[in-house]
Amino acid sequence: MAKIPPVKGTRDFYPNEMAVRNWITDGWRNASLRNAFVEYDGPIFEHLKLFTEKSGQEIASELFSLTDRGGRDLAIRPEMTPTLARMVNQKINALPRPIKWFSMPRCCRAERPQKGRLREFFQWNIDIIGDDSVLADAEVIYTAIDYLRNVGLTPDDIAVRISSRSLLAALLLDQGFAPDQLQTLYALLDKRPKVSQAVFAEMAAEKIPDATLRDNLMNLQAINSLDQISPLAQSKPAHDALAQLQQLFTYLDLMSVADFCLFDITIVRGLAYYTGPVFEIFDRNASLRAIAAGGRYDNLLAGLGGSQPVTGTGMGMGDVVLGLLLQGKKLINTLTQQLDFFVIDADPDLFQKTLQITAQLRQKGFTAAFSYKRTAVGKQFKQANAANARYALVLGQETTQRNEITLKKLTSPKTQQTTFTLDNFWTTLAANQLP
Amino acid sequence: MAKIPPVKGTRDFYPNEMAVRNWITDGWRNASLRNAFVEYDGPIFEHLKLFTEKSGQEIASELFSLTDRGGRDLAIRPEMTPTLARMVNQKINALPRPIKWFSMPRCCRAERPQKGRLREFFQWNIDIIGDDSVLADAEVIYTAIDYLRNVGLTPDDIAVRISSRSLLAALLLDQGFAPDQLQTLYALLDKRPKVSQAVFAEMAAEKIPDATLRDNLMNLQAINSLDQISPLAQSKPAHDALAQLQQLFTYLDLMSVADFCLFDITIVRGLAYYTGPVFEIFDRNASLRAIAAGGRYDNLLAGLGGSQPVTGTGMGMGDVVLGLLLQGKKLINTLTQQLDFFVIDADPDLFQKTLQITAQLRQKGFTAAFSYKRTAVGKQFKQANAANARYALVLGQETTQRNEITLKKLTSPKTQQTTFTLDNFWTTLAANQLP
Repeated sequence: MAKIPPVKGTRDFYPNEMAVRNWITDGWRNASLRNAFVEYDGPIFEHLKLFTEKSGQEIASELFSLTDRGGRDLAIRPEMTPTLARMVNQKINALPRPIKWFSMPRCCRAERPQKGRLREFFQWNIDIIGDDSVLADAEVIYTAIDYLRNVGLTPDDIAVRISSRSLLAALLLDQGFAPDQLQTLYALLDKRPKVSQAVFAEMAAEKIPDATLRDNLMNLQAINSLDQISPLAQSKPAHDALAQLQQLFTYLDLMSVADFCLFDITIVRGLAYYTGPVFEIFDRNASLRAIAAGGRYDNLLAGLGGSQPVTGTGMGMGDVVLGLLLQGKKLINTLTQQLDFFVIDADPDLFQKTLQITAQLRQKGFTAAFSYKRTAVGKQFKQANAANARYALVLGQETTQRNEITLKKLTSPKTQQTTFTLDNFWTTLAANQLP
Repeated sequence: MAKIPPVKGTRDFYPNEMAVRNWITDGWRNASLRNAFVEYDGPIFEHLKLFTEKSGQEIASELFSLTDRGGRDLAIRPEMTPTLARMVNQKINALPRPIKWFSMPRCCRAERPQKGRLREFFQWNIDIIGDDSVLADAEVIYTAIDYLRNVGLTPDDIAVRISSRSLLAALLLDQGFAPDQLQTLYALLDKRPKVSQAVFAEMAAEKIPDATLRDNLMNLQAINSLDQISPLAQSKPAHDALAQLQQLFTYLDLMSVADFCLFDITIVRGLAYYTGPVFEIFDRNASLRAIAAGGRYDNLLAGLGGSQPVTGTGMGMGDVVLGLLLQGKKLINTLTQQLDFFVIDADPDLFQKTLQITAQLRQKGFTAAFSYKRTAVGKQFKQANAANARYALVLGQETTQRNEITLKKLTSPKTQQTTFTLDNFWTTLAANQLP
């Protein structure tokens, strides 16, 4: 049979790559638990309709879709939010609020693979549902920073760029735009950081024929601090939205993460469903795509089959861009797997004892291994070192006759060696008093 | 929008179900590490051909297959072995041997959901590749038992039913069957435990028209101990295969798990690729499908695109049957998530301090939460208890003015209360000396 390659845009996780993946997901899990989120997950595929209802038919071309034997149209999840909405809506009256949930789903998108974007990835999701206070938004942003700070990233490395969809909407309406223009403007503004000033001006001219309105938009998107907004925020909606955003920054300051955060009016998020604070996390050099993004989505759940309106706010962080950033900063820090004991016999006759002792060590919860080949002691020591064993336990012909065993500490620079009676070895091990 | 249900045969993992799933997979991981296996994983989908090459075109109807934008035929993995073979073959000359790998993949099969069989499941896989010693087979079986024993199952609950494909082949040839009949006989014998004696006799009559041969087969499958085989195993292949199987039982005895193991000649495994010892693990009542199954497959890797023959032996254990068994035995033992601290303020004015202290606790690695609503102290205590907090940290108007904080231990039967200066609290916490 010919060699069959892996599918383009997917990854094979050999033990070294798996250790990195586990280190990332363990970090996500620990940050989630520290901040009092609980874990959930859904199936890898859903009815196709769940995704097209949320994102429109256009999404179908970006999905890996499939048909089951009953002819049902299904798709592998490209993101977690539709599943989250489905699960919350299913039990909306039984779940105590606020719902603070996290998940680390494997997701797939049928996109062209490129730097920072693969067709299969893992995405950390945290969401707080059922609380409309801006405290919940602060907690989501804090939790994302908590993880990133914990792996060693500093405010010199990354920035959380924050804005507010409700503030932007109020300002745009105050500047003379009509409510039905807003979605077009969001999509336009979301492209702003991705194109040149000239291209943006061209796109704006196409979408906003009125020159005065267009100038107003250009002036708005040039704002770079909350202070500059105060004089503009005269209407009640603008004033309230500004006050909410200021409150968010106050909370982030109290939580000692203000130096990671800044206001950035160009953060809009293209998706239609955001209703309040929105944010994206970037490396300071902005050489990569966003590391994470999120915001408040107060109508999303009801829009996805919910029987009642439920507020929500959340965030997603993928492992691919994050991995590139951490690799670039040399912050990936996986522990080499260590073996507690490698059991060595000096004579093939002693092998039965080797096997017994290995099994006994494992039964007591220790990591233990032995050589499958009855080879020279030196070769077995080589295997023990290759396996990164902390101790070698050596069965010699004479010591075994005296019911003794020799312990060699392999991790100390000068190899330390102690001979124990077998009974004494087990007692010393149980008392956690090995050298 | 109408409610969209989950796909039939999949599971939603709400926090309680997720805790069970994590408890199972953590147990698998720990048993694997204790026995010196390292973790790997592959993509959720592969080229369809990888699966049909291993299992034949029939498998296609049991797969969730999909087509990517380039028109390539793909399928969600129904099992891990083809991916394992592909990954090992890709780096066969670079990987140190023996390769001791484990994985816990999510797999999907387009089957009709029924008791113990879902369309999406998790499967623990352990494999030892590149060592042809029966020690490797013993390690695989030991590791499976190590996990099952660790969750509380005893030899009264489960049995590892062991046989040998090479022994069976040798005995069948000695009894007069032709080599090209073997695959038909394996498939026939694999059905033996699943049908009545009468139905089996009928099936045998169809496949083996010769009455003498058929009697020989009936006599063979009635054997129920290794001792009964010795007189039959006269040819060298039968003698060698029997000696190997006896050696396997000796190793399992030395490793103190013999009481979980028994010889069962009806264990054949339907799949073509097994070449040596094979086993299945069942509950003693045999009310469920097999909990786990595995065996030696010495030609599989070369058959799946390998450039050289590589021996292997391994096992798979799914989470669905296992979960039913553990639930039935009341052995599922998930820890309720516990919060270290719930921070409470007696006055809304103190909320800023609440937020600061919560963030400080989290930064020190503790799990901490607070109420999003400024409500009465009693209500906040209720939330703390609902969140299963170990301690409440209470900010009172007067104590806060004196820069003090009150710690209440919520887990002790009689609520214990201590007031600290804030400095003293942080010092005591750092020294791990809280009451």
